[in-house]
This record gives sequence, structure tokens and C-alpha cells, in this order.
Amino acid sequence: MNILVLGSGQLARMMSLSATHLDLHVLAYDVSTKKVVNPVTGQLSEQSLSQAIASSCAITAEFEHIPHDVLEQCSLSGKFYPGAQAIATGGDRAKEKALLDKAAVKCAPYKLITEKQHFLDAVEQLALPMVVKTCQAGYDGKGQWRVKSVEDIESIWLEMAEFLSTGTTLSPHSIIAEKMIPFDREVSIIGVRDRNGQCKIYPLTENQHTDGVLTLSIAGKEKNDIQQQAEDAFNALANSLNYVGVLAIEFFDVQGELLVNEIAPRVHNSGHWTQQGCHTSQFENHMRAISGLPLGSTTLIRPTAMINVLGQQSIPSTVLTVDGVTSHWYGKTAKPGRKMGHINVSANSLHELGEKLGELAEFLPEEYYPGVLATGHQLILN
Amino acid sequence: MNILVLGSGQLARMMSLSATHLDLHVLAYDVSTKKVVNPVTGQLSEQSLSQAIASSCAITAEFEHIPHDVLEQCSLSGKFYPGAQAIATGGDRAKEKALLDKAAVKCAPYKLITEKQHFLDAVEQLALPMVVKTCQAGYDGKGQWRVKSVEDIESIWLEMAEFLSTGTTLSPHSIIAEKMIPFDREVSIIGVRDRNGQCKIYPLTENQHTDGVLTLSIAGKEKNDIQQQAEDAFNALANSLNYVGVLAIEFFDVQGELLVNEIAPRVHNSGHWTQQGCHTSQFENHMRAISGLPLGSTTLIRPTAMINVLGQQSIPSTVLTVDGVTSHWYGKTAKPGRKMGHINVSANSLHELGEKLGELAEFLPEEYYPGVLATGHQLILN
Repeated sequence: MNILVLGSGQLARMMSLSATHLDLHVLAYDVSTKKVVNPVTGQLSEQSLSQAIASSCAITAEFEHIPHDVLEQCSLSGKFYPGAQAIATGGDRAKEKALLDKAAVKCAPYKLITEKQHFLDAVEQLALPMVVKTCQAGYDGKGQWRVKSVEDIESIWLEMAEFLSTGTTLSPHSIIAEKMIPFDREVSIIGVRDRNGQCKIYPLTENQHTDGVLTLSIAGKEKNDIQQQAEDAFNALANSLNYVGVLAIEFFDVQGELLVNEIAPRVHNSGHWTQQGCHTSQFENHMRAISGLPLGSTTLIRPTAMINVLGQQSIPSTVLTVDGVTSHWYGKTAKPGRKMGHINVSANSLHELGEKLGELAEFLPEEYYPGVLATGHQLILN
Repeated sequence: MNILVLGSGQLARMMSLSATHLDLHVLAYDVSTKKVVNPVTGQLSEQSLSQAIASSCAITAEFEHIPHDVLEQCSLSGKFYPGAQAIATGGDRAKEKALLDKAAVKCAPYKLITEKQHFLDAVEQLALPMVVKTCQAGYDGKGQWRVKSVEDIESIWLEMAEFLSTGTTLSPHSIIAEKMIPFDREVSIIGVRDRNGQCKIYPLTENQHTDGVLTLSIAGKEKNDIQQQAEDAFNALANSLNYVGVLAIEFFDVQGELLVNEIAPRVHNSGHWTQQGCHTSQFENHMRAISGLPLGSTTLIRPTAMINVLGQQSIPSTVLTVDGVTSHWYGKTAKPGRKMGHINVSANSLHELGEKLGELAEFLPEEYYPGVLATGHQLILN
């Protein structure tokens, strides 16, 4: 069976590598070159997009900002998962908030902005400091502002107005103001829903971001009550979207209460640890779900951490001297800040995981791999 | 880094799938078509064998019976692992027995045969019933005879003589007679040795054969003393060959004493369970070893069984409804008895593994998947 993935980056690549043993053959559509390629070898396929759509049993996407015509063509085939509505929701914060409200899932207080008065109202109602984000674009910390004091308003409004003016009638631009919540930490839940509506959910992941980009995740720390909150949110949102495939939800943990930060209608960086921490990874489960196969186990086998490799030319092979470490290289050309790969490390206990992070920190300088040593210490102390 | 594998079957395919995340790119040389191919997609490479040898950082093989000229060309490159001597030993039972004797590793009493008198001597000294095998060929039960009574001698000798006569001065044929040992079961050990001579060894695997072909393996049952015997044999043989990569040794368990049956200088069917039962699979560890990377953990994470899929057109997708099951399809054209894929199943205990085998037996008819139900029962009772 053939699978077509829109987007040909590392997520398509890992979907392919996780699906071959199930007799699923993944091709990827590179939206920038408009070519169909093998996402592992990069080799051009002889198939056009239309041919690849026709020959696939299922189509999916590795990102939300898919050209409108491509998304429509895939949707019309009736084989596109998780579905155009889910993709549109994941790519538009205004739609995302509407979904959260509809599904009665909690998030931080927010206000939509399409003109200056809305911005001024937001400042008044949500109070400063406040985060302001573009609704229709933005990824990993881009397209967002922090309004710290009333002096910031005019200069930030100028940038916001520029973004709003670039919208069209067909796809109007909007901006969202969110109350800045003094959260304790960021966590995320990854789950999968099959064509019959059955859901399987991985354990909650604790995430560390540096300059708005994920740098480290840990799975295996969570207590039942907080896991349950996340699962309730997952079920409500996935069912509301009649979702098929892997869905990721990021939360702020505010003294034990989870508030949704954002949702991603796809496999997610904070679920990469599932490649070594679970029997069935998020990639394999996404492939299983969209192709109509039974879902695999999402139970944690061992506490596992993931360390992102950002902008580096390679992963030091010395990390492989630490027992329970697997490195994942994406085969891309290095650019500053670019996601180049990740390192998974598993252990039999959180304490042992802390020790292993400590060992890894010797090979992973703090400058490029922030938080590895500190996280290791924390896990050992707890 | 590029790796070249001699042979383009499922072992090369799984080596490739297990190495891509380490930034290792596997090409395979199909000895029948004499073409270099991608072992996953089957796509022809533009490289000739000589070019592929030149562009690889390491070369290995997925089977022992490699054409002499190809093996020599690869050896001369200085990049061939586990080494020509190991391959020659694995492909010739006479050399194998000589190695066992040299390394002082126990096997069943045997006698080499190159003429009829040797055969008659063997019948007298080893006693009937007796197993007789060709030394230079034979795979999965082919090229062997069971001599049950003196009446069999003449007819079997005719077949043996035909094999002996096809040898050449450069590669003479011989036959080995082995005393038939009333063994309790068959087990195997898979281990890996790196370029510096460090060894890591997986837990012992219990194997079930049907008509001479492996049908089921179980890992996670063994006691320390028998594991130690197997590890001692592994270390002695791997060190004696100055081996680099994964080496498999099959044993007869005779009331707790292990006698070597045969060795395979490669990743092995009885180690396929390591894909789900260990942090680092035999395939990844073989790739790590030959490319000079640190070895990964060979510790058992969870008891795991492997069921071979022989001659079937597909693997029933219903097996994936059982938690902890992963199916592996090799993408080959089905022929009776051909190894088409395998099914791995992991559980948190041997008892639970038994229950899962019981569940799987509902989807896997005894006729095609012998021993699944019975093995499940045994694990539950023990």
C-alpha cells in the first residue's frame, strides 16, 4: 500500500522509516519544488502529484501550512487524513480557539484582533504583560510579540497592522492576544485516533523550550490526575474534529491545571521519544491509523528523554557510548537553529535516566544542548 | 557514510532500515543480477560494484555463499567485515568444526568424509542414527541426510558421492557426519563485537524448527548458567576470528550442556526479536560495529517472541490488534516455504507473553504457524 505525505522533511522521513516493515510505501510531496520524492533517499519519483494521489491508499501531511490548491486536491480524493478541517484548525489560531471553546477545553483567556481598538481592548481586559500572536502563520517562536508595558503598544501595533494588511478576502488575517499565564512548565500529549474513532494516548511529555524552540522532552514523570486531564482534552478535541491519525496538544501546567497552548494536527517533535520509549512509535501509529490498520500500544515501556539537535553539523557519535541512547539524524544541510536530528535516551527508572543525562552532558555542550545537565540533576534529586 | 551489503534480501533490507537514523546509507549488491540496488526500494543504483566498494566506509554480507571473486574484491578493500575468514568459516562446515576445535568450544562428535571408507568409519564410530551434511553448501535443512539404519548407507552414499564429485581442486567438497544427539531443545546466541574487540551479547534465544526451518523464537526465558555457557562460546569464537559485527551461534541444549550446532557470521533469523525486545537491534548493532560506532545495549527490555511467516501472501493485519505486536514484511514475491516476514510480540512477563501467543494463535492457523498455541500454553503453565 502506498502513502503520500505532504511535506518532505524529517517527519515524512520518519513516517517512511516506521512504516516500511508494515508493507506501507511512503512518498512525499515537496511543496517548494512541487515534486514527489522518496523522503528517505530524496530521490525524485516518476509520479506527478495527481498520480501519487491516485496510487495512494491514504494521504497525510507533516505540516499545517499546505498550499490551498494542494490541500483541496487531496481532500477531494477522500483519502486525506486527518482531514482538511483539522489541518486548517492547526494552521489558524483563531480556528483553534473556536475549536477549544466548542469542545469546552480550557485555554488561557484570549481576544481576537483585526483592528487597533481590539488590541487596546485586549490590553485593558487581559492585562500586561500579554502575548500577541499572528493567527495564520508563525512557527517555533516566529510571528509573536510580548507586550510588556503600554509603551510597547504603538511600535508593536505597527508590525501587527502590517501583518493584518497582507490578508485577503479569501484568507483574512487576524491576530490573537493571550493572557500571559505564569505557568510552572510546558507539557504535551500525543495520541492517535483510528478510522473507527478508537483513541490510544501516550503518556504526557514534559517539554523544555529555549528561545521558543523545543530543546528537551521527558516522558515517564507524570501522575494519574494530570495525565487524565490531558487525555480528556485529547478525546474532546480529536472526537470534535472526527480526527484520524496522530494529534499533538501542548499545554501550560498552571499549578496542576492544564491550559491548552496550541494543537498540532500531526506527529510532533515532543513525541519523538516514543521511537524508543514505547512499543509503537507515534510515526508507526500515525501510519497505522490513516491506512486503516489496528493501532499499536502507546504504553510507556521505559522513562525516556529526547534532546533536540539544532543547527549542528552532526551528532557526536560519543553519545552512543551511553547505554540506551539512540541518535536520529535527518540528513539535512545544517543552518543555524535548524532541527537537524534528535537523541533519545531510555532508562529503567527516572533516577537512572537522570544519571544518563548527566553522562550525555559531557558530550553535549550546554551552549548547544541547553538543560541536559540540569534536567539530569533534577531527576536524580527527585 | 555509505555501507555496502553483499546480498539484497531481507537482512540487507532490515540493516538499511535500522541504520538510516544513524546517517548510514546502505546499498546492496544482488549477486544473482550483479547489480547494486537499494535494498528497501529495490531501485537500481548508478554505481557499479567497484564504485560501491570505493564509496563505502564498510562492507558486509547477509549470507555466507558469496562468489569467490566478489569476496576477494571486497576483502582487498580492507573494509570488509566480519572478514573473509569468518565468511569462509560460516560457509563451510569443515572449517567451522576446525574453528570450534581450535577455540575449544564443544560440539557433537563428528567425522569428515571425502571417500566411502570415511562414511563407513563414521557409521561405526558415531553409531546410528546419524546426521550427514554437506560442508560447502546447504541452508535451512537442504543438503543433509539422516542415516537411520545400515540399509540406508548405499543409497545415501550415491547422493553423497555425487556432491563430492562436483568439488574442484580450488574448492574441494567434503561431507561431515555428526553424531545425532538426543537434545532437549535448540537455542542460539547473538552477539556483536566491535573493531576494538569489545563484545556485547544478547540474551539466549530458544528456537523451534519445523522441517529444518526456524518457525518460532523466544527470548527472556534463560537462567544465568546456561547464558554464561553461550557467552563463553561466543567470546571464544568471536575473538578467535577477530570478528567484527554480529555473529550468531546455534546450540543443542543437552540436559543443560550446550553443544554448538552451527555458526552464522551475520545477523540471524533467531535474532529478529531484538528489533522489539532490546533497545538496540541486532541490525543496528551490526551497522554500528562495522562502521566503527559504539555498540548499543543488548539487554533484554521485555520477554519477546518471534514467529516466522513462511510462504504466505501477506501477514494477517488482525495480529496488530494484539498489544505489543509488530509485523515485519520483507516485500518479496511469495513462494512455498519462502521467508516472507516475521511477527514480533513483546510482553511484561513470560506469563503475559504466553497469553499473547494464545491470542495470536486465533489469527495464525497451526498449519502455517506451527507451535504458536502450544508455546503460549507452555509459557502460561511455567
